[in-house]
Amino acid sequence: MGVKLGILGLGTVGTGTVQLLLDNLGRHPLLQEIEIYRVGVRSLSKPRTVELPEGVITTDLESIVTDPAIDIVVEVLGGLEPARSLILKAIRSGKHVVTANKAVIARYGDEIFTLAEQAGVCVMLEAAVGGGIPVIQPLKQSLSVNRIHTVIGIVNGTTNYILTKMQTEGSSFEDVLADAQKLGYAEADPTTDVDGLDAADKIAILASIASGCRVDLSDVYCEGIRQVSKTDITYAEKLGFVIKLLAIAKKITPSLSSPLSVRVHPTLVPKEHPLASIYGVNNAILVEGEPIGQVMFFGPGAGAGATASAVSSDILNIVAALKTEKAINEEILKQELENKPTSKIALHNQLLTARHQEDCQIAPITELVTQFYARFLTKDQPGVIGKLGTCFGTHGVSLELVVQTGFQGQLAEIVVVTHDVREGDFRKALTEISTLEAIDSIPSLLRVL
Amino acid sequence: MGVKLGILGLGTVGTGTVQLLLDNLGRHPLLQEIEIYRVGVRSLSKPRTVELPEGVITTDLESIVTDPAIDIVVEVLGGLEPARSLILKAIRSGKHVVTANKAVIARYGDEIFTLAEQAGVCVMLEAAVGGGIPVIQPLKQSLSVNRIHTVIGIVNGTTNYILTKMQTEGSSFEDVLADAQKLGYAEADPTTDVDGLDAADKIAILASIASGCRVDLSDVYCEGIRQVSKTDITYAEKLGFVIKLLAIAKKITPSLSSPLSVRVHPTLVPKEHPLASIYGVNNAILVEGEPIGQVMFFGPGAGAGATASAVSSDILNIVAALKTEKAINEEILKQELENKPTSKIALHNQLLTARHQEDCQIAPITELVTQFYARFLTKDQPGVIGKLGTCFGTHGVSLELVVQTGFQGQLAEIVVVTHDVREGDFRKALTEISTLEAIDSIPSLLRVL
Repeated sequence: MGVKLGILGLGTVGTGTVQLLLDNLGRHPLLQEIEIYRVGVRSLSKPRTVELPEGVITTDLESIVTDPAIDIVVEVLGGLEPARSLILKAIRSGKHVVTANKAVIARYGDEIFTLAEQAGVCVMLEAAVGGGIPVIQPLKQSLSVNRIHTVIGIVNGTTNYILTKMQTEGSSFEDVLADAQKLGYAEADPTTDVDGLDAADKIAILASIASGCRVDLSDVYCEGIRQVSKTDITYAEKLGFVIKLLAIAKKITPSLSSPLSVRVHPTLVPKEHPLASIYGVNNAILVEGEPIGQVMFFGPGAGAGATASAVSSDILNIVAALKTEKAINEEILKQELENKPTSKIALHNQLLTARHQEDCQIAPITELVTQFYARFLTKDQPGVIGKLGTCFGTHGVSLELVVQTGFQGQLAEIVVVTHDVREGDFRKALTEISTLEAIDSIPSLLRVL
Repeated sequence: MGVKLGILGLGTVGTGTVQLLLDNLGRHPLLQEIEIYRVGVRSLSKPRTVELPEGVITTDLESIVTDPAIDIVVEVLGGLEPARSLILKAIRSGKHVVTANKAVIARYGDEIFTLAEQAGVCVMLEAAVGGGIPVIQPLKQSLSVNRIHTVIGIVNGTTNYILTKMQTEGSSFEDVLADAQKLGYAEADPTTDVDGLDAADKIAILASIASGCRVDLSDVYCEGIRQVSKTDITYAEKLGFVIKLLAIAKKITPSLSSPLSVRVHPTLVPKEHPLASIYGVNNAILVEGEPIGQVMFFGPGAGAGATASAVSSDILNIVAALKTEKAINEEILKQELENKPTSKIALHNQLLTARHQEDCQIAPITELVTQFYARFLTKDQPGVIGKLGTCFGTHGVSLELVVQTGFQGQLAEIVVVTHDVREGDFRKALTEISTLEAIDSIPSLLRVL
């Protein structure tokens, strides 16, 4: 039938997608009905590894999103602008949209999905989270029969690579980062990854899809991995944990209307937990719900091929729906009706579109109830542990474990693991502890899964 | 709108599904449009943990599959008959079918899907493989843009539990089996599980969905775990492996038209492989394709809640499609047409139905190219390893490793790991070796992943 694509961007993901679609034998037969009609790029002179017929490549991106011939706009530009404006314009022109743009969806999801609903089009985003791992569509279609109360992901390959190397080689954050930059696993400016911002975009999206509410980036509490030291990794190891940067969306009580806690932070993960054995640049997303229990999706979190697979699967889903629409229109024409063929009806499949109309409350981080790991540097004098314990006790923080083995120069090192405690109470205790004369500093503060 | 379900069977899975559907707040809102219209059981007098309105439960299963009021038939009876006949009759009556019945699909899939295609209805089977893990629908919808060349699953919880216990506790197969039977993880007659038959059903289904061909149970080569001994688990451990019962579907060459090797057998899995850390009754399915690379799905492989989640997700998918159909019919009616509303059109979504029309060839097990692990008991005399090596060499089998450390009574124990070798060649070498005077017996023969 010829579904016409307009692709915005021909970088790594765009090129991977074009390659997959042009080389379509042995894949789902519906892919053969796709025509790459226009590809929008910034510069015509840049050398390309894919060959496209003359006239397909253009620098006029605006013309693609408004072209009446185009059915689906695939946005793989990255960045906030012009991506956001082009997506909105495409929707207004009645195009279905496939995007890999986590940053735009995490910030402007509400605007985009509201407009898409009005326009009766789909906005698909499998590639925005977890690279090639099918997780968005399974959440919408398969797992949504559950009451999902928890989504926990290792969704940033760069930080997982760095933490894995720090763990296996005993290297420092700075050394591993420099190494990762050389190997191309980390950007020259690593902020987006190591400060948890990329993971924050992704958990905002996962939380939205899993809960049916619109969770915005501004709802996400975020800490990166710069503060994680060799020392903490060694202590964690001794205590039976590995340290992972987790992106977490979790209902804070079992009630249906419970507020959601949505956060990104380095976390001590028990070694026997399924997420503990996710190493290197891999990603994994764990979903817990009633009655399913725990399921996990694992795979490559980035890369041209993996991301192209996710983008193409979204395209395939829309093509299948468009094909149904076409079958309906043909049936109507066959009945020799005077009315015009209907359109947009077949796509009102509620499992393709994103639900985001539910109400939900975001819990402030102070309301979180969790176990903490904290490392203190103290003067080497008797009674310090007693003072710490008393201070915690005053604020209702009970301790599971206190270890004092190491020294850093003249200072004694004390590691504390609490029982479950309200974060607000724990913070108050810490503020008081930091004023104690015996306390030099509190170099690390980590949460325990 | 009220989609009417006829459920066949109210055992563990049926009860779990009814519970989920009746308690639908906080789940996908489309579930609220479902009516449990009839439930067919064998005996009305059996006590039930779910309450249903009077008249819903019946012992007349035939009347359910032909009732014009019913839209979807959910078959959770298990067993071959009357399940197969009822599924076929339901399809002939124009019902969509959701089934958890791996045994029926693996044996009669061709008959069932051909009939469903003619009747324009969907047959959904997420619950047939991997319990609650969403894998069938992701294979159809997300991963099918890839050239899938490999599917490897740990798809039988009982055998994985037994092998895990043998590994962690050093117990024998018989002891762990007796233990598993007490705990309810193994049946009184454990044949279906321990001889690999359940896994064989499941890999026939996964191979069909992943390849788009119809792979039948009779195409699956199958070995169970009775032959796996404590000794082999210990040797495997020393060599860096764990032993898992794997269900494998794999193209034997990189070519698009390559024959498929489909098999179930205990396998030495390298410890760092993602499948090596799947313990206990959990299931995991690993899919490899181009360009995605490797993805894995992990979760509970059985249990009322997990299986009810899978069954309900299939129902949800059909309800969403029926809702589109209804929207179309309303649109047509609104246009005041004389023609009757169309039907069955919206469901021609090629991503819900199972492709099974592709041609594919099954490779005989002798064509398999793999590494082997073999354990020999030999007379304790010099030159035995030389004789073994020569014999293997004659048949083109090259060895990666030969270990002679243990003794069993008067006999020396020799363990051999080969390089990649054609199974047919390896078997010929073994036949010759078994005639050597120095060889007492060959207690184990395992493949290496």
